[in-house]
Amino acid sequence: MIIIDSLIQKIVALKAPVVIGLDPVLSEIPDAYKKPYLAMKNKFAASAKVLYDFNKDMINAFYDIAPAVKPQIAMYEKYGSYGIKAYEKTIQYAKKKGMFVVADAKRNDIGNTAKAYAGAFLGTVDLLDGSHAESFSADWLTVSPFLGSDSITPFVDVCIGNNRGIFILVKTSNPAGGDIQNKISTQTGNTIFSDLARFVNIQSERFVGKFGYSPIGAVVGATYPAEAEELRMLMPKAIFLVPGYGAQGGKADDVVPCFNKGGLGAIVNSSRGIMCAYKTKHSTTTCTKEQFKAATRNAVLDMIKEINTSLNENEKGFN
Amino acid sequence: MIIIDSLIQKIVALKAPVVIGLDPVLSEIPDAYKKPYLAMKNKFAASAKVLYDFNKDMINAFYDIAPAVKPQIAMYEKYGSYGIKAYEKTIQYAKKKGMFVVADAKRNDIGNTAKAYAGAFLGTVDLLDGSHAESFSADWLTVSPFLGSDSITPFVDVCIGNNRGIFILVKTSNPAGGDIQNKISTQTGNTIFSDLARFVNIQSERFVGKFGYSPIGAVVGATYPAEAEELRMLMPKAIFLVPGYGAQGGKADDVVPCFNKGGLGAIVNSSRGIMCAYKTKHSTTTCTKEQFKAATRNAVLDMIKEINTSLNENEKGFN
Repeated sequence: MIIIDSLIQKIVALKAPVVIGLDPVLSEIPDAYKKPYLAMKNKFAASAKVLYDFNKDMINAFYDIAPAVKPQIAMYEKYGSYGIKAYEKTIQYAKKKGMFVVADAKRNDIGNTAKAYAGAFLGTVDLLDGSHAESFSADWLTVSPFLGSDSITPFVDVCIGNNRGIFILVKTSNPAGGDIQNKISTQTGNTIFSDLARFVNIQSERFVGKFGYSPIGAVVGATYPAEAEELRMLMPKAIFLVPGYGAQGGKADDVVPCFNKGGLGAIVNSSRGIMCAYKTKHSTTTCTKEQFKAATRNAVLDMIKEINTSLNENEKGFN
Repeated sequence: MIIIDSLIQKIVALKAPVVIGLDPVLSEIPDAYKKPYLAMKNKFAASAKVLYDFNKDMINAFYDIAPAVKPQIAMYEKYGSYGIKAYEKTIQYAKKKGMFVVADAKRNDIGNTAKAYAGAFLGTVDLLDGSHAESFSADWLTVSPFLGSDSITPFVDVCIGNNRGIFILVKTSNPAGGDIQNKISTQTGNTIFSDLARFVNIQSERFVGKFGYSPIGAVVGATYPAEAEELRMLMPKAIFLVPGYGAQGGKADDVVPCFNKGGLGAIVNSSRGIMCAYKTKHSTTTCTKEQFKAATRNAVLDMIKEINTSLNENEKGFN
């Protein structure tokens, strides 16, 4: 089955068009996860072990109610090879628990370098004995389009060949996202982001599942609902990854334009809003693992409920 | 001393405004580097060990005649945590040999994520015991500007705080680089790349050394010499990282517009052209390590000579 169809079936079954960010920061993690490793001499290895244990309990808290996780690689890469090991193990654990994994790495390069990134995250890599094997084995990867079409098509090719997906940055959620993205081109008369959307649409058309969607998708920030409405029309087949919900200011009503009818077409991300939800009732020093998991699960349930309420009010809900 | 001054002093001492790419690909590496690891069971670990041994001999071949190396992280990251270990060790070895290291990773993100990348490559990261330590410890990092000014300034801040530099993608060397970069904005009347250059110039002004240059630099491809001339004027203080020389088609005359008088203002990269130079006389199966190093050193010497000849012909040479 094409991966986008599997994802859609899971979203519909759970009535949960959400993806939970796994962006752990040591200072935000309850002490209960840190204590077992405080005595370790190698502080990089110890820090990475905390991230992995914390992620496991994040996943344990919501794997049966949310379809996907999005680990942001910067938070792991900072601990070098130890951090990358924690990233790899997090992906493996999420997949073992039946979740889809969006590797948020915003990779961008050309030629052999683009192929290396695509192979690493979504395909296979060449090994010393001439064999090939999967490396990170993510399901989706975020990619950044500044270098142009020849920096994106190598990723699309690997997606088609290996049944995976990408989310191409089109309209990001941050305040200065418009510096380049909102410029209007004299050549086309369109904004950069809407020209990009036309390009993404062409790529999406190359790999479409039975529900009419493509795993070649777009990143469209929750913080720009008016632009999202235009982008939804320009990329009818692309699935949207919607960051900016919660901590960044996007509300449930703001994400509605990213969706089509029936709750389909988008998957909304929350990272800090879920990871730090425990702080409303507990402190970092005293929160137990069970309290953390309960607070995290409740935050995911609240997010799903809020989004479904807004979708239903706009006649775009499930059922 | 500000890092840009140290680099300039070294470039002038060696009369070598070059940086050598370390982008190893197993199929391009002489068998002599592979044989010691063919029997290893863990093929990811074995592949990464080959990359590191190969890089060491690349560096051994030219560390005394070239000022800097530029390892492209994709070629290592594809082997997961083992590959990142080889990347870390490559950086350490190059620095031990007195070379400057440009981490080519084209990172791009916002807020805490941008800070995490900047800390990882150029500053320090937070550890479990509350202490901070350097992680990758590169000297420069390439960054990609699609997400706007708030995705770049966190990197500049870390550069100023830790005496490091970045190269911001402005005009890339690939054929489709113009898809976004060459669009002319109705808001400003300028191309995206020249507006970016104006932004880079403002950032460069924040951190200037005694020779009038800043380590806050720009990537300007060798394949677009006319645009390079405009960009040199728009960013008088920024040092340029110039990819696209050699294998990608850029010639010595093409890089001249990236320079100011006296051989200053740019550092020209070659990767495949150096790494694969041994193939003109030797084969992958029979080339010895000594033959590889000799061919590599000669290729670097040829590159330096070609660039100096073109600089001298245009009254921009050293002396």
